[in-house]
Amino acid sequence: MNCNVPTDICFSFQGFAARGGKTDEHRDGWGIAFFEGRGCRLFLDQQPAITSPIAQLVSHYPIHSTHVIAHVRKATQGAVNLENCHPFRRSLWGRYWVFAHNGNLELPAISPGQFFQPVGNTDSEQAFCLMLQHLFEHFPQAKPDPTTLHHALLEITQTLAPQGCFNYLLSDGEDFFAYCSTQLSYIVRQAPFQAAHLIDEDVSVDFRELTQPDDRVAVIATTPLTNNETWNTIQPGTLMAFRDGQPLAELKTNLPQPIEP
Amino acid sequence: MNCNVPTDICFSFQGFAARGGKTDEHRDGWGIAFFEGRGCRLFLDQQPAITSPIAQLVSHYPIHSTHVIAHVRKATQGAVNLENCHPFRRSLWGRYWVFAHNGNLELPAISPGQFFQPVGNTDSEQAFCLMLQHLFEHFPQAKPDPTTLHHALLEITQTLAPQGCFNYLLSDGEDFFAYCSTQLSYIVRQAPFQAAHLIDEDVSVDFRELTQPDDRVAVIATTPLTNNETWNTIQPGTLMAFRDGQPLAELKTNLPQPIEP
Repeated sequence: MNCNVPTDICFSFQGFAARGGKTDEHRDGWGIAFFEGRGCRLFLDQQPAITSPIAQLVSHYPIHSTHVIAHVRKATQGAVNLENCHPFRRSLWGRYWVFAHNGNLELPAISPGQFFQPVGNTDSEQAFCLMLQHLFEHFPQAKPDPTTLHHALLEITQTLAPQGCFNYLLSDGEDFFAYCSTQLSYIVRQAPFQAAHLIDEDVSVDFRELTQPDDRVAVIATTPLTNNETWNTIQPGTLMAFRDGQPLAELKTNLPQPIEP
Repeated sequence: MNCNVPTDICFSFQGFAARGGKTDEHRDGWGIAFFEGRGCRLFLDQQPAITSPIAQLVSHYPIHSTHVIAHVRKATQGAVNLENCHPFRRSLWGRYWVFAHNGNLELPAISPGQFFQPVGNTDSEQAFCLMLQHLFEHFPQAKPDPTTLHHALLEITQTLAPQGCFNYLLSDGEDFFAYCSTQLSYIVRQAPFQAAHLIDEDVSVDFRELTQPDDRVAVIATTPLTNNETWNTIQPGTLMAFRDGQPLAELKTNLPQPIEP
């Protein structure tokens, strides 16, 4: 979720958490990161999201944030344990960076000489470390401007994406990137607001009662979370940047894409 | 807290959290980090520990861990906000490192060329970044053995401690260090266990009912948490290493210490 004003994610998280063992099979742990200014709260649990007491807290305690990344895990590589739960967090340029991945990659081992080393043993954390190492080596002193960063991220994404399936979300609480390797959708909610109904739980919310006229919220997910709104399908091979609750820019990888039927 | 088997901290945390606004004035946020293997959960809140809903969860939901670091903040430098809450977490050598500080330091600004940069603006996070940078520069490839690490940590501690008051705890879920600049105590609980009563809350626990004969737990705190057990006062200028719930080694800084009356 990316917003122009701090917003709570309780509604979307209820539907999303159901995919962690109830309506979907992603029951191998979960996590959520909330940025508040430069600060970042990270909740992780190796228990399924549908039974985790920490997920219960997050579902019902409204934390207001402009940049949120959540994940429910279906383990492909790496055991079911805390260090393998997404989102992963590292720091670079005096900012926290948070990353969640949907997919599976076959990557070569990381060289011991590289600064960014994985703590757990997932392909996802390995990819995250390779991405940050790439950015750090290109910009060792300070964070570059958003456009330069977007292009540098495209470069490393293009080298990793051919190794498998690589849908991801990445943010530092200022920039927010979403890459579609195979499957990713988003919606922008803004005035005039309407009611929304979750797909995974029989829960509705009327955003007209909860919003101010200038509020704007983008929600990005593997598949749509609601069944009475129009979600946009992101094309495979697209690296989108979001800001203030809406798409800011998009870049296409130079990778061959599957031909649509 | 450092233990030989994963233990929950609910009892100690109840007394400790009371110091976040009820029995003491450390009400400018709080945090707690739990290691589970190489993984690390970090709960942070800029609200006082006595009113934070997340602190309520941590008080009552038993998370079992061998290495725990908790902090209640009384702001000296840096605003009351999420990015200034302790403990701070960074990664080095493929491990998460967690740090909490009690005291106040007057440090020069960190050079932009240094890899470890603070996200917030406390003296504490700045000190943590200087410590990790020192360790990284001395051991760029991999974590050294515990004794070498202990000596390297003493070296950087000696350069920082003269800048003010620098009681701290540092752990990566494997090693656990405690430095006493002015005030720090610890207790080792092991068989034969007994009952303990908190100072800050009228709460008792009988450890005989909750423990196995081989369990061993060290609790380190600025001042003792219980009033019917004998706590050990750590001498100023001492950098202790704990392992498996007991002191492993201690080193003394070469700094002049105040003469005791």
